[in-house]
Amino acid sequence: MINVTVWGENVHEQTHEAVRALYPAGMHQAIADALGAEPGMRARTATLQEPEHGLGETVLEETDVLTWWGHCAHDEVDDAVVERVQTRVLEGMGIIVLHSAHFSKIFKRLMGTSCALKWREAGEKERVWCCNPGHPIARGVPPYFELERSEMYGEPFGIPAPDENVFISWYQGGEVFRSGCTWQRGAGKVFYFAPGHETYPIYHDEHVLRVIANAVRWAAPVGERWANPRAGINTPAEQAPEPIEVRGESVH
Amino acid sequence: MINVTVWGENVHEQTHEAVRALYPAGMHQAIADALGAEPGMRARTATLQEPEHGLGETVLEETDVLTWWGHCAHDEVDDAVVERVQTRVLEGMGIIVLHSAHFSKIFKRLMGTSCALKWREAGEKERVWCCNPGHPIARGVPPYFELERSEMYGEPFGIPAPDENVFISWYQGGEVFRSGCTWQRGAGKVFYFAPGHETYPIYHDEHVLRVIANAVRWAAPVGERWANPRAGINTPAEQAPEPIEVRGESVH
Amino acid sequence: MINVTVWGENVHEQTHEAVRALYPAGMHQAIADALGAEPGMRARTATLQEPEHGLGETVLEETDVLTWWGHCAHDEVDDAVVERVQTRVLEGMGIIVLHSAHFSKIFKRLMGTSCALKWREAGEKERVWCCNPGHPIARGVPPYFELERSEMYGEPFGIPAPDENVFISWYQGGEVFRSGCTWQRGAGKVFYFAPGHETYPIYHDEHVLRVIANAVRWAAPVGERWANPRAGINTPAEQAPEPIEVRGESVH
Amino acid sequence: MINVTVWGENVHEQTHEAVRALYPAGMHQAIADALGAEPGMRARTATLQEPEHGLGETVLEETDVLTWWGHCAHDEVDDAVVERVQTRVLEGMGIIVLHSAHFSKIFKRLMGTSCALKWREAGEKERVWCCNPGHPIARGVPPYFELERSEMYGEPFGIPAPDENVFISWYQGGEVFRSGCTWQRGAGKVFYFAPGHETYPIYHDEHVLRVIANAVRWAAPVGERWANPRAGINTPAEQAPEPIEVRGESVH
Repeated sequence: MINVTVWGENVHEQTHEAVRALYPAGMHQAIADALGAEPGMRARTATLQEPEHGLGETVLEETDVLTWWGHCAHDEVDDAVVERVQTRVLEGMGIIVLHSAHFSKIFKRLMGTSCALKWREAGEKERVWCCNPGHPIARGVPPYFELERSEMYGEPFGIPAPDENVFISWYQGGEVFRSGCTWQRGAGKVFYFAPGHETYPIYHDEHVLRVIANAVRWAAPVGERWANPRAGINTPAEQAPEPIEVRGESVH
Repeated sequence: MINVTVWGENVHEQTHEAVRALYPAGMHQAIADALGAEPGMRARTATLQEPEHGLGETVLEETDVLTWWGHCAHDEVDDAVVERVQTRVLEGMGIIVLHSAHFSKIFKRLMGTSCALKWREAGEKERVWCCNPGHPIARGVPPYFELERSEMYGEPFGIPAPDENVFISWYQGGEVFRSGCTWQRGAGKVFYFAPGHETYPIYHDEHVLRVIANAVRWAAPVGERWANPRAGINTPAEQAPEPIEVRGESVH
Repeated sequence: MINVTVWGENVHEQTHEAVRALYPAGMHQAIADALGAEPGMRARTATLQEPEHGLGETVLEETDVLTWWGHCAHDEVDDAVVERVQTRVLEGMGIIVLHSAHFSKIFKRLMGTSCALKWREAGEKERVWCCNPGHPIARGVPPYFELERSEMYGEPFGIPAPDENVFISWYQGGEVFRSGCTWQRGAGKVFYFAPGHETYPIYHDEHVLRVIANAVRWAAPVGERWANPRAGINTPAEQAPEPIEVRGESVH
Repeated sequence: MINVTVWGENVHEQTHEAVRALYPAGMHQAIADALGAEPGMRARTATLQEPEHGLGETVLEETDVLTWWGHCAHDEVDDAVVERVQTRVLEGMGIIVLHSAHFSKIFKRLMGTSCALKWREAGEKERVWCCNPGHPIARGVPPYFELERSEMYGEPFGIPAPDENVFISWYQGGEVFRSGCTWQRGAGKVFYFAPGHETYPIYHDEHVLRVIANAVRWAAPVGERWANPRAGINTPAEQAPEPIEVRGESVH
């Protein structure tokens, strides 16, 4: 059983009528409903407005994969929570970063770069191409699929070279974008997926939901947990694998 | 002409007699002296104790490559300076991270990981092997070289998979370490080099200094500057490469 | 159920008494016995001496993961079989390349490099360190394990930068080696694992067998098959996703 | 001084009037003329029809960077020449692979994959976006440039994950392509660049020529030559860095 926590900023759903009309229970709920219907998957939600943004120690401890959507309130996310989420990723929790969360604190922190991009909100067509057909995240997805209305995200995208590039998008207005990319950070897997503008029904699209469910399955930890990942570990001379004698000066 | 700024924490040189004996003018000065003697290179120093740690806007603007050594005072480095250094790396400034600076704020920020490792201060032998013989950073360096006394740094090293692995170290006590690794962040090149414990004369070793000088040359920007790397750039419909009409709802 | 085919060159087992004493039924059989005892895994063997080296179309079609050990008879492997194996890898079959098979035709073909290395047959101690603790291939393996007698394989190893480096080995004689590395080729996963010299009981070591079994599980295809991976696919203008008219000259 | 050898298949220039009209002296000559006019660069040509395809030992020995264009006669390239070119790349020679040479023997051999792609010859517009603005290969190239008529090359492209992705193309007909990618093989740098269909004046485009010249400069070796890159090197016990005694059985 894969335990997913779907995190949503949950602001535009409250303040924009068009967004509420598309996602009456919030985008996080729409995503959680889809994931919860997957075999072997269990989904809960967490939002910015909850204490600790719904991401206390216990919740994170019980989470195999976290999905993250945010847009206008990145700065309101508490740094201590960001630190905690990063630590859990380093231990092995997967994280799926969605759309405008490219500028979230957690994604910028995991990438080490600006995560900036070009953008245009014009309701244009996006065509998402798979450039890695055997990848588990692309399973059951056709060679390309189209989103009739999408926000354009364009290159250059300020990310480190991805470990794997799974999707590249074509936009009607003439741009391109690496719209599906993976990285490893510590023992945790990271997937960024670009589609998801809140004024279009993107999280009702079957292919988008297929990609997110596949990504959750792919990111769920199968190796061991990296225990205490931030700790530097001293191995004194008497515990060295080979016998050695201490020599020289010391600062410790 | 490559302009290098050699940053030193400059604490143990003041507080430990053994360190001062090895580096009377500080480790930063020893490194700057070596780099300043390289053809086509000009080196200045900057230290923790200076205003803005010696890394004001003007200094960074004039710096092609920054080298960074710190150990016991990482937390005293001002976050605003770290942010500024990261921005300059994203713009294209190279950065060479040395030894215990694996735990510096700037390296952890650029990597997105813990940067933790195993360690032992026993004055044991380290043998640095080149695993990438044609790499510019290995130029003029033999297949391996030895440091008679070194601090052990051991795997697992909490870094993202390096773009290139140039050196791997063997330790007398039985460990191994990816001791020379490269990454790109934005337009900037990053090189981490493990040797450099302050109680041993490592920055007087000809091979170590050769590697650092090579790394500076390799990391110096040759491409264009990535201007304003943190900015998201709006390309409105009327500026799109292909003619499009705005459709749908908007949150902006 | 994961179907594994364990390929063995099966020459030294016939011609060297010491090898036969360790592996009376051949190294391939020792490996197949271990894998066949894994839950959810089924193992068969194939050897150089069989028609088509035991790797006919049907066998490969039924194989999820192929393991490959060879040493003195690489040149006797038929190029047509190598081509067929490569095609299956591109389609999604996993391949685990063992020890001296670093110089096999199939590994050199998949890597595009020399795959050369340093070596010494002196029965020295090898210590295998995990540098990627959360990786599925390292599951159940301690931070390091030792092989009391091993052939030294040393850097530089003529491979492309691995997608992931899982193990690095320390040798008593003073060398290091990237002894466990992964790559993707087409839809197929590749893992190279260095231990396995035939005159030592390495394929009776529990950790070595654990790594191989883990690697098989990791390499088994979970995404879709990449159908007809060598074919260039023409998409004529009338089938283009966007309507276009043919313009200009043609050579086709 | 960088010595470039520009290799051309030189068939369609002889057999298609439209190609000859665009490139009266051959595409190779057009490229060589552009590179020869670059400061610090010297260019010669070599073609399929010459003995050893113009790539004898001496020519390759004197070549820092080789560019390769072929389309309809890949199979006529002698395997021994391909082997020799690969060896020179492993030693450190750069190679720039152009357009339809994605299916050349040398590129497939260096990649280890199919190098297959989608294609359409419809004279449609291609827009080449830079996704790595600080990269030396992108120097002096605008954020995007357009080729009014181009052959479509589309994803999935059967290549290993590139070390660096420098350009991604948008096509009028709706596809995308990773049109500029780099890899390292041994000590040699590899750059693939997609534009270059022979019936359009692509090698007269200033941006295309700028990219190729930049790529030559980037690929020129600056590190040491990897001598004898295909040789496995024995380091007997008496030459081991650490003193060891030979133990156990041997097959050598």
